[in-house]
Parts: sequence; structure tokens; C-alpha cells
Amino acid sequence: MKDDGSADIVLLVEHCRSLLDLGCSSVLLLGTTGEANSFTNAERRAILEGVLAGGIAAEKLIVGTGCSAIGDTVGLSKHALSLGVTRVLVLPPFYYKLVSDEGLFGAFAATVEQINDDRLQMLLYLIPQLTGIELHADLVEKIFLAYPKNVVGLKDSSGNWPATQTLCRRLGDKIDVLVGTEALLLRAMQAGASGCISATANATAQPIIELFIKRDRREAATLEEGVLATRAAFESFPVIPALKAYLARKTGQKSWRNVRPPLCALTQNQTEALIASLVKAPQRQEAS
Amino acid sequence: MKDDGSADIVLLVEHCRSLLDLGCSSVLLLGTTGEANSFTNAERRAILEGVLAGGIAAEKLIVGTGCSAIGDTVGLSKHALSLGVTRVLVLPPFYYKLVSDEGLFGAFAATVEQINDDRLQMLLYLIPQLTGIELHADLVEKIFLAYPKNVVGLKDSSGNWPATQTLCRRLGDKIDVLVGTEALLLRAMQAGASGCISATANATAQPIIELFIKRDRREAATLEEGVLATRAAFESFPVIPALKAYLARKTGQKSWRNVRPPLCALTQNQTEALIASLVKAPQRQEAS
Repeated sequence: MKDDGSADIVLLVEHCRSLLDLGCSSVLLLGTTGEANSFTNAERRAILEGVLAGGIAAEKLIVGTGCSAIGDTVGLSKHALSLGVTRVLVLPPFYYKLVSDEGLFGAFAATVEQINDDRLQMLLYLIPQLTGIELHADLVEKIFLAYPKNVVGLKDSSGNWPATQTLCRRLGDKIDVLVGTEALLLRAMQAGASGCISATANATAQPIIELFIKRDRREAATLEEGVLATRAAFESFPVIPALKAYLARKTGQKSWRNVRPPLCALTQNQTEALIASLVKAPQRQEAS
Repeated sequence: MKDDGSADIVLLVEHCRSLLDLGCSSVLLLGTTGEANSFTNAERRAILEGVLAGGIAAEKLIVGTGCSAIGDTVGLSKHALSLGVTRVLVLPPFYYKLVSDEGLFGAFAATVEQINDDRLQMLLYLIPQLTGIELHADLVEKIFLAYPKNVVGLKDSSGNWPATQTLCRRLGDKIDVLVGTEALLLRAMQAGASGCISATANATAQPIIELFIKRDRREAATLEEGVLATRAAFESFPVIPALKAYLARKTGQKSWRNVRPPLCALTQNQTEALIASLVKAPQRQEAS
């Protein structure tokens, strides 16, 4: 964000390009790390339009379109589709808690049916620590079976390995199960996952890609050790501001530090401590 | 909602009028029971405009304008002010969890400053069981002290009596502390609260008003017993659909039954069980 809080599209486009150049297969735009739910619908549309106008190919993007109101999720998804972006990552409506599986199924069904577009490639976004909502394997499977052409995957950020393992085993051959952290990448891929979508990949894409490529070789264990240490260094701070502080340092672009309330930017002292702990991590991230 | 999911403004206006006619001092439009966060911003604006066009006075309304994006909260609040509705109930941004008090203060500060209107009368909405966010008395006081002309009250739906009592005692003489349930009305008013904003008041306004009026008399204990029993009857079902099922039965208007996903309407059997339990409650609601 610029100092006035508006999205810095130039920096964002540069960042997307650098991730793709490093070998990321896609960029997830407007997810949790992108603070999507701190932006209005109009801002979210403008960000996507800006990234496309900046030359990032639509087929390289997945766009987070989940909102608490299904009507907004539908609107943002239709907007993405109108621009050729077919893959959208959708949160369950996340205001109400203790809702039934029937209600959650109804929410995703309404979303797919109101989007009403054969091109739609929807990924479900499981992040119960923020939504307060669990999407169990039974429910995910029910949604997939109801809309097999439009539900193509999920991002599981639960960090709950037994639940993740169940999702990988039950659904990994039907849809793309993507784990939300590289810390589970090896285990998850052995269980049937397709890869990961990771916040820390914004800072450490290269070693994660290397881990992905060499996952079946003996050296994977050593690579994983380094990746875990780096992730742990970020996780010892509020992760989203920490990633942005790191990118500010790496690129020399101060805009990277800015976050929107209720998040707070890392202090100078926190930033120094973060950078120091990253240097100590056995696998140094690509740009330190 | 009509069967197509759109707001039934005619029913809503009738309902607002009936609550005011019964003696409610205000109607909170577009709160949790009103499923505000299941409606798009455009729908929320249209609902407020419709209620005003239906003849409900702006000064009788409090409007829920809280969204996960501060920009949306600001936009809806400015819209309400432009129509003469000065009292808005504002949730903290509710996507991120484990956020700092500094970040939450920043969020409310940004909201007040971006609304930037002397007429603003903001009430903070404490409902941690849905937002996952606690607003402690220290933080509420800090927000009030920073914006004493614009922060005029709070709705505390936590149901956490020790925390509520602290809010009443510390802030009850500075701002309107309104409890989210009539079950705490007597205790809270003795501790300094101004009243309550209650979901169940949609069905049981009359006995709650009687309890409010007679709160210092001996008969208050008996009145409270009846009010608690009726509330307990609703709370033995998902409360929002239960209230709407009750209103459908009471008014004969089927639209009342409809809710938006992820909520589910009460089944016929549930509705019969609800009505039966309400008839058994010692203090029968006004219209059964």
C-alpha cells in the first residue's frame, strides 16, 4: 500500500512478475496475505484490473473473491471471469459461526449457481482460524460432487495435519488439494496433494520450488529443514506484516511496509529482529 | 426475504412500525439478526432507503454499518448520515483474528476520521462470538476518549457478565452501554447500562419494555423470569431463523421464514416445537 492506504499496483505487478519468473506456477491475488477483506469490492476489482493491465497473464492468476455476503463473492467472481481469470478462491461466508453443513453447502451452491459460468474453476478456501468455520472432507466432497465441473480444488490453511491428510487422501485424485504451508508440502504430496499456496512463498519462493521439485529425492529432508526454519522465523512475528517488512527491505520500496487496520506494520526493532533471524536460518531465503 | 432472497421491504417497514408502536425507543436495522453481512453494500443501502421511504423516522433508527473492510463501513455510514440517520452500530473489522488493541484502535480511528462528520453518533458493536474479536473496556475507553463527540455508546452482545459489568461501571456514565440481551437488562442497568438491544425483542418487545419500565419495582423479578423463559425457548433453536419462523407464524407472512445462506430456515417440525415451547413459557410473548 502507498502511504495513503491505496494499493500500490506498480509494486504489486513487479512482485507478481518476480514470483512467476522464479518458477511459481500461479500467483494467488487477494488472499489473506493480500488483505483482500480489508479492501472494498471496487478496490478489489481495480487491483485485479491493474495487475492484468500490468502484463500479468490471466491464466497465471488465482483471485480471492470470498466475502461475507454471497452477492459480493458472486460479483467479484463474475468480474474475474469477465477478465479471463477463471480460477477463484472462495471463502465460506464468514460472519456467522456454528452454522450447519447444510447452510454451508447452500452458500457454496448459491455461489456457483449465481455465478452461472461454465468457465468457473472454483477453489474452496479452508482457513478456520480466521473464518471460524470448518469445511470437513464430507462437505467438501458433497460440494465437489454437486458441481464437479466448477469445483476444481481447495486451499487448506488449517494447519491441522490429520484433517489435511484426510482431504488429500479422499479428494487428491479428484481435485487439486493445495496446502497453505510449505511446512506440510512433502507430507501432503505423499498423501495426494498437488502443491501449496503459501504466504511465506512471497519471500521464499525459490527454496519452496526447489523442495517441490526434489520432493522425492533424499535431499528433500535437508531442503525442508531450511524451509521450515525460514517459515518459523516469519511466524515468530505477525506473519503478514513480517512478510511485508521483509519485502520492503528486499526491494528498498517502503510502500511494502504498509498494512491496513486492524493489522499493524512491524516496528523498526521487530524488522531488525526478523532480518537477523532470517540470516541465521539454515536455508537462507533467495534474496537476503 | 422474499422467496428470491431479496429483502421484503414492505414487511420490514411494518415490523419497524410495530416495534416503535409497542414502545421501543429505536429500531436497530441491519444488525446480526437482520443478516446485514449477508447483504451487499448496495442492498444494505437500498434497505435503509426503503425503510425511510416507508415512513420510519430517521431519528428512530440505528443502522448497522460494520463490514470487514473499513472503506465499506465508512461508505455505509456516510450513506446513513446523508439520509439523516446519525446513529450507526459498527463492528470491528472481523476477518483477521488475534489482532492487537493498537490495530483495533487504528481501525475505529480510521473509521471515524474517514466518515469525518460532526453528526456521527457511533456505537461500537461487541459480539466476540461472531467476530472473534474482544473489545475490552480499556480499548473502548481509549476510543471514546479519542472521539468523545462521535462515540456515543456500545452494544455488548458478549453475554459475558463480568466483562459487561466492567463496561457498565467504567463507561455507563459516559456513553450508552446497551446490553445485547434482556436476560442481563436488570443487572446491567443497576451497574450503569442504559438499556438493551435484543434480537428476541423482535418477538417479545412488550414484556421487555415492561421489564425496563418496572426494573426498580418488586415485580421486576417475576417479569424477568418470564422474559428469560421466552428467550430460552428461542435459544434452544438457531435464534435468528427461530425469530423469523415465529414472525412468519405471528404475521401470516411466509417471507419472514426465509434466511440467507449460511443460515437455514427452521423446519416445519422445529417451528411447531418452538411455538409449543413459547406457549409453555410463563410469560407469554405479546402476540401468541
